[in-house]
Amino acid sequence: MSKGEATRQAILGQALDLTSEVGLEGLTLGVLAQRVQMSKSGLYAHFASKEVLQRDVLDTAAARFVDVVIAPALKRPRGLPRIELLFEGWLRWGTEELTGGCPFVAAAADFDDRPGMVRDRLIGHLKDMLGTVSRSARIAVEEGHFRADLDTDQFAYEMWGLLVAYQHYRRLLGDPASIRRAHIAFRGLIDHSTR
Amino acid sequence: MSKGEATRQAILGQALDLTSEVGLEGLTLGVLAQRVQMSKSGLYAHFASKEVLQRDVLDTAAARFVDVVIAPALKRPRGLPRIELLFEGWLRWGTEELTGGCPFVAAAADFDDRPGMVRDRLIGHLKDMLGTVSRSARIAVEEGHFRADLDTDQFAYEMWGLLVAYQHYRRLLGDPASIRRAHIAFRGLIDHSTR
Repeated sequence: MSKGEATRQAILGQALDLTSEVGLEGLTLGVLAQRVQMSKSGLYAHFASKEVLQRDVLDTAAARFVDVVIAPALKRPRGLPRIELLFEGWLRWGTEELTGGCPFVAAAADFDDRPGMVRDRLIGHLKDMLGTVSRSARIAVEEGHFRADLDTDQFAYEMWGLLVAYQHYRRLLGDPASIRRAHIAFRGLIDHSTR
Repeated sequence: MSKGEATRQAILGQALDLTSEVGLEGLTLGVLAQRVQMSKSGLYAHFASKEVLQRDVLDTAAARFVDVVIAPALKRPRGLPRIELLFEGWLRWGTEELTGGCPFVAAAADFDDRPGMVRDRLIGHLKDMLGTVSRSARIAVEEGHFRADLDTDQFAYEMWGLLVAYQHYRRLLGDPASIRRAHIAFRGLIDHSTR
């Protein structure tokens, strides 16, 4: 990695933490410049525009998501054990890993009607994540953990819903039962997928 | 209603449509002034600050939600028919009624770590909505439509999750199966609550 690329990656790491707090919409070159104590023109050398910065932060988030959520799950046995770890990692992702919340969930509402490179990249990453869930469920079918006629894309839809609900209940409503509710909902989804 | 109050309500109606598009975070006195073709100082006569404006728009959204989602459901027979209409109305709320998406969902991620009057009001409205779902499920238990040991707060959690997932799948991912997925998930939740 060149020195310029190393600097760029270090900036993106801080930009991701900032995004978790203020949302992707709040991530501007000016706000980031203050955080990393660089001049705005110094940042322009790395990111040609706010949109490029926002797009690259989404890539950084997706790479970290692979490292801390997907990769550990892929090391577990195929099928249900893998899905269970995926779920647990995802719960921690928007709470302990990124203490300001999941940047994908925050960006989903902000960018849903804003065409452009940021929205396109966001859609790509979400499809990747949901596709990983769907494929993991397909493997669980093959392993005989889930029933043969399971609609695995439907499984991904429902798992996504209960993960987002967890983020709202925990981070916004401050509901002490949120983690219990997430687990009960997940157990119900697994039961429903099994029989 | 005084003329001043009528003007204020008219402004808030336009502010709500704008919020649906740009998110509550994007709703500033400057942006609203352009939309309603008033001066910023003219708006200050109605809203002392951006926070007051954002808080009042949430109240406007909650009142409209009661009119178009909750009130029609309350006119249906107690129990399951009421919950079904609540669900259908909610699906339309963030798509047809507010074409830019549900302002509560958008604000949930933006304001979850931003203490203040806007966050407090948002929490209050969300608790009202989720409480309505939970009480409707309680009535469905009383009517014998749902099983006696149903955790009705858990029911609200899971219904919220699949509604938010619908918004993401439809508005962001543009998935043509989104409405079918929402209905399948809801039917699964109802089945699970029945037996």
